[in-house]
Amino acid sequence: MGVSPDFGGFELNRVYNFAAGPATLPLPVLEKAQSELTAYRDSGMSVMEMSHRSAVYQDIFDRSLSSLRKLMQIPDEYEILYVQGGASMQFAMVPMNLMSTYKKAYYINTGNFAKNAMKEAKLFGEVICPASSEDENYTYIPKLTEDMFAEPADYVHITTNNTIFGTRYTDDKLPPCGDIPLVTDMSSSILSEPVDVSKYGIIYAGAQKNIGPAGVAVVIIRKDLIGKVSGLPFMLDYAVYQKNGSMKNTPPTYAIYMAGLVFDYLLENGGLEWIKEKNYRKARKLYEFIDSTDFYKNSVRPEDRSIMNVTFVTGDPDLDKKFASEAAKAGLANLKGHRLVGGMRASIYNAMPEEGIDCLIDFMKKFETENR
Amino acid sequence: MGVSPDFGGFELNRVYNFAAGPATLPLPVLEKAQSELTAYRDSGMSVMEMSHRSAVYQDIFDRSLSSLRKLMQIPDEYEILYVQGGASMQFAMVPMNLMSTYKKAYYINTGNFAKNAMKEAKLFGEVICPASSEDENYTYIPKLTEDMFAEPADYVHITTNNTIFGTRYTDDKLPPCGDIPLVTDMSSSILSEPVDVSKYGIIYAGAQKNIGPAGVAVVIIRKDLIGKVSGLPFMLDYAVYQKNGSMKNTPPTYAIYMAGLVFDYLLENGGLEWIKEKNYRKARKLYEFIDSTDFYKNSVRPEDRSIMNVTFVTGDPDLDKKFASEAAKAGLANLKGHRLVGGMRASIYNAMPEEGIDCLIDFMKKFETENR
Repeated sequence: MGVSPDFGGFELNRVYNFAAGPATLPLPVLEKAQSELTAYRDSGMSVMEMSHRSAVYQDIFDRSLSSLRKLMQIPDEYEILYVQGGASMQFAMVPMNLMSTYKKAYYINTGNFAKNAMKEAKLFGEVICPASSEDENYTYIPKLTEDMFAEPADYVHITTNNTIFGTRYTDDKLPPCGDIPLVTDMSSSILSEPVDVSKYGIIYAGAQKNIGPAGVAVVIIRKDLIGKVSGLPFMLDYAVYQKNGSMKNTPPTYAIYMAGLVFDYLLENGGLEWIKEKNYRKARKLYEFIDSTDFYKNSVRPEDRSIMNVTFVTGDPDLDKKFASEAAKAGLANLKGHRLVGGMRASIYNAMPEEGIDCLIDFMKKFETENR
Repeated sequence: MGVSPDFGGFELNRVYNFAAGPATLPLPVLEKAQSELTAYRDSGMSVMEMSHRSAVYQDIFDRSLSSLRKLMQIPDEYEILYVQGGASMQFAMVPMNLMSTYKKAYYINTGNFAKNAMKEAKLFGEVICPASSEDENYTYIPKLTEDMFAEPADYVHITTNNTIFGTRYTDDKLPPCGDIPLVTDMSSSILSEPVDVSKYGIIYAGAQKNIGPAGVAVVIIRKDLIGKVSGLPFMLDYAVYQKNGSMKNTPPTYAIYMAGLVFDYLLENGGLEWIKEKNYRKARKLYEFIDSTDFYKNSVRPEDRSIMNVTFVTGDPDLDKKFASEAAKAGLANLKGHRLVGGMRASIYNAMPEEGIDCLIDFMKKFETENR
């Protein structure tokens, strides 16, 4: 199955995959992985078969770290850790490791994952929620003001991009929380554009959107925030990851190799400024089309619209269903929205080519004509 | 680089990889993964790119579970969970989830990993260690008697195969612990031979020896042991995995797909009886050779020798070093022993072909002649 020729299929046996994560990966990266799957360079073995203690693997591992550091311009005061369990594991690890002084943290509730993170934090200390957009089904990012963060706390937690609802924080919306470390779940927008890492205490992200296959999460953490709590299980202690270069036990070696290939692919093509320009053009094109017709509707406040996840509805749930099903048949896969929102969601991560957006818009036009 | 023609290289660009884990995988499995890396069947995408909520991925996932159930003849009273963090994460999850009634457990200390597991358990309750082989650098499995388990406890923990030291429990050595659930870390021997699952409360195993790539662990758990403790972070609660079919969050989708390929490869070739016969023949051949010469020595009590990890020394650390280095040059990779034991270790998991053992023995003979 491939993309229907009506919509300009780019590879005979590949579709445009709009899944929210795991998600589409750059084809050159997949092809490279394929070419060295049974034997990596002159090592005589697959990367999957390599001892994590071997020099050949250590080199792959170290290169992935230095590529990520270069790509995101991560300052020296920050450690990069590879952890398992996805962002969900961080929902627990962040409070376990950071709720040390005040045993208290602020959580801004901008969606389902933000709420899950908040729920987990309550197992470890007090949670203050100064702002939420739950009242309008998370269609906006609340305005945050300094007075909301008057009480001292161990950290403030946000979710940069809300995958399910299609919203995101822009820089001017970040919490004005002064010296309180800012922690963000950046799973669905990391690497989509340059970020000033120094604004954050921790940036964490599951890999399966813009980084690589599921099974590894990246934790970028300011070094002074490591080691504040003792007596943790070693797999849940940032200090153990720091001390052992994320290899106290066997890391998810292949997922890290794939992540490294993605980092290098981005670096070779122009880095985060290059991908930002592509991403903004893709998102603008799609939103402009949606706004140009009353057949489709996006409910998010324009200034808070995600550039990674674009949600839209026709207003008729049956028609939405038909849309997703017919789109899939045309080679535009996984456009069904999350059950909490309904309708459609086009996740247009880094690896979604602009042609995928063009195909989607063409399909949307055709579908509108046939079903108006 | 491949195996030197002197030692019967089997693939021009592949070596014999004796790594302890991650370890060699069956070549047909790697080739299958390679063939469908950019597009799985008619899905139009790589398995790495599939939404874990999609029908096509759910099918891969479900098949892997049913194949494992068939392979190990896992009774219906047992749940199979896919968890991240390797066996090391289980060192904490087992006590967190099981120390409910007595807040007490027995740990048998037969090696480094057994000791690490014990250390973690102490964070959650009382640990009784009725037997240890630390006194003789873990070269044997202690004899366990009923009276050692007189006090009631939540479980007894063992490590079936001790990767670093090359020992293993045979069935007659299992703890006679009556009704107390037996929990085992089976990371380095799972799938090497048939096991009577009903003897265990929990069997857990990191994937990276006999199952697949690192990044997923299998937990086979008797259902009545699930849900005994509440208030756990959801990523650490067996009940959450059971309730959500191991998909409360995104599982390590590609590692599970690879595991499924390995399970199917074993099933297609004759299952665990088939691989047991191969494994015993391989191990016997190697031990017989080691015992036949006084140049090499294995220190493990014969009845406790592992069939997966064969340790040996020449008695001269410099010569051991030379051995590992020259073997690597000849295409016999990763034979250096663990730092806690020194010397050499040949990990001969399921995927190590018998020809690999033959090559190793030929090399050992040649090395002996040249260095005696």
